[in-house]
Amino acid sequence: MTIEGKSYRTVWFENNTLYLINQPQLPHRFEIVSYTDFREAARAIRDMVVRGAPAIGATGAYAMALAVIRGNDPDEARRIIGEARPTAQDLFYGIDRIYDAVSAGKDPVKEADRVAEEYIAASEKIGEYGADLIKEGMRINTHCNAGWLATVDWGTALAPVYKAARQGKSLFVYADETRPRCQGSRLTAYELAQEKIPHAVIADNAAGFFMARGMIDMVIVGSDRIARNGDIANKIGTYTSALAARANGIPFYVAAPFATMDGNCPGGEDIPIEERSEEEVSHMFGISEKTGEEDRVRIAPVGSPCRNPAFDVTPAELITGIITEKGIFDPAEIGRLIT
Amino acid sequence: MTIEGKSYRTVWFENNTLYLINQPQLPHRFEIVSYTDFREAARAIRDMVVRGAPAIGATGAYAMALAVIRGNDPDEARRIIGEARPTAQDLFYGIDRIYDAVSAGKDPVKEADRVAEEYIAASEKIGEYGADLIKEGMRINTHCNAGWLATVDWGTALAPVYKAARQGKSLFVYADETRPRCQGSRLTAYELAQEKIPHAVIADNAAGFFMARGMIDMVIVGSDRIARNGDIANKIGTYTSALAARANGIPFYVAAPFATMDGNCPGGEDIPIEERSEEEVSHMFGISEKTGEEDRVRIAPVGSPCRNPAFDVTPAELITGIITEKGIFDPAEIGRLIT
Repeated sequence: MTIEGKSYRTVWFENNTLYLINQPQLPHRFEIVSYTDFREAARAIRDMVVRGAPAIGATGAYAMALAVIRGNDPDEARRIIGEARPTAQDLFYGIDRIYDAVSAGKDPVKEADRVAEEYIAASEKIGEYGADLIKEGMRINTHCNAGWLATVDWGTALAPVYKAARQGKSLFVYADETRPRCQGSRLTAYELAQEKIPHAVIADNAAGFFMARGMIDMVIVGSDRIARNGDIANKIGTYTSALAARANGIPFYVAAPFATMDGNCPGGEDIPIEERSEEEVSHMFGISEKTGEEDRVRIAPVGSPCRNPAFDVTPAELITGIITEKGIFDPAEIGRLIT
Repeated sequence: MTIEGKSYRTVWFENNTLYLINQPQLPHRFEIVSYTDFREAARAIRDMVVRGAPAIGATGAYAMALAVIRGNDPDEARRIIGEARPTAQDLFYGIDRIYDAVSAGKDPVKEADRVAEEYIAASEKIGEYGADLIKEGMRINTHCNAGWLATVDWGTALAPVYKAARQGKSLFVYADETRPRCQGSRLTAYELAQEKIPHAVIADNAAGFFMARGMIDMVIVGSDRIARNGDIANKIGTYTSALAARANGIPFYVAAPFATMDGNCPGGEDIPIEERSEEEVSHMFGISEKTGEEDRVRIAPVGSPCRNPAFDVTPAELITGIITEKGIFDPAEIGRLIT
């Protein structure tokens, strides 16, 4: 990815140090943060300094590598890093890749680099397969952020958009803002602006309206975990987006690498759903108009409780296809693919 | 309605002056504003100092009354007030009630008071009919604010909740926050807290999740306009809420007085949909954590466009029933009822 003309990955490792783009600061400030302790890296995952299933997977791998090279107990590190976020399958995938490599006597950092490179290659292939679905002039709706910033590079849901744009296709993206944390308005809009792709941010509530008006041709979203039966977990609101797409005859695609598939998970009801802090709903953060500084504003009344499930499950029957690095599959095929 | 132990209406008129509860200040500050000029009253409608179809209807009536008693041209006043918000049928209903009364030589203020009283009576009847649908222990989901603050008193969607609670039924309300202006987290949560009704604020994205988990028994929403074929316009996001209710076998009710029905509107596609400022999406207002003062924070990047349709259309086929002051009707009956 290119940010202000310079090339970056979302997650990288140099001189025994893990580097992340500090995502809660975006789009208002671009900042790099670094970690040398695996516990700090786990906290960064929990606090969503880095988010997006593949980016979490690579960060989990590097966090495990940090633990090993610093002489921490690998079993304890595996447990602590694994507790940072419960839903994303990639976190466990990344951790286990390093754990297993070290058990087999391999170099943890080299293995984590391999994980990161594989994610980039998978994202690029997802982009190529997905770009074939995108016709000239299409208007694409996406939910949350499944772009560069959710992966190591390229993205999952947005990789086809970037590939199609580089093939010279003109297209337009409706980015759901994605309350409560607004990864759509903060991160997807930022990425699209950097890539000069025409877009508009919309309230999540408005996606169904634009679909019903015939103004959206396709929906592409990422995923945090894919079950054997083809059900997928993704950012809260994905399910209603899929219902609206189905009601309006609009194709609904999920883009994810094989690392997001969980062979041990029979169906969507078996995916653990993280519930996050009430304050993500009662408050909103951004740049204050009065001070020009970062701030949070309270929206809901003091004392009104909030509920904040971070993910929901979209059943396989609502999904047109799953775009992977090995091609586009019917969700019913997933069980067979991951045996 | 009772606010901190004192009884209020949302809209009232005394000594040739129109009084409104200043809704953008809620839930953080309770403030009354007053108007003696119809143009200022029209601006208050446009700027959403008052909102909610019946509350707009009564305010429109009083604004027309102000114009007449101040000697303004009634035709010009009718046009200017009518331009304040395009979607709510009640605005035109309220204006025309006064316009026609004055043409017939009646007192404009007395007629506007009658409009307000009729709205209160209709809301209370809606509450009574709707409360019969609410069983002990039900968990009700609502979108936007269709409570006291959206009417003159009682509410539309929330009137059945208030009546059922006063009948001693225990119930729980999931209030969609309702981006972009968050009337759910700001106003509905405020009302429910004042009425001591157990509730939780949720991101709009989460309603489908709670429905799929079997945690919502009924959805009740208000309406800004009801077409002859039973299609309804309501706050953006109502349509996806109705789709999610249908997918999960949950009854979806619309509560509105007859004043919201538009006999001249054949179907939902004929309802004009207001598009509001981009800044409602790119920013969020509330109380700053740093200063304790009202502030707005910018969420989306500078330069990313936003689209902001304020309403959507829910087709009749997704609506279980329309709760009115004359009973609960199948949406297919609306055309017959308003001839």
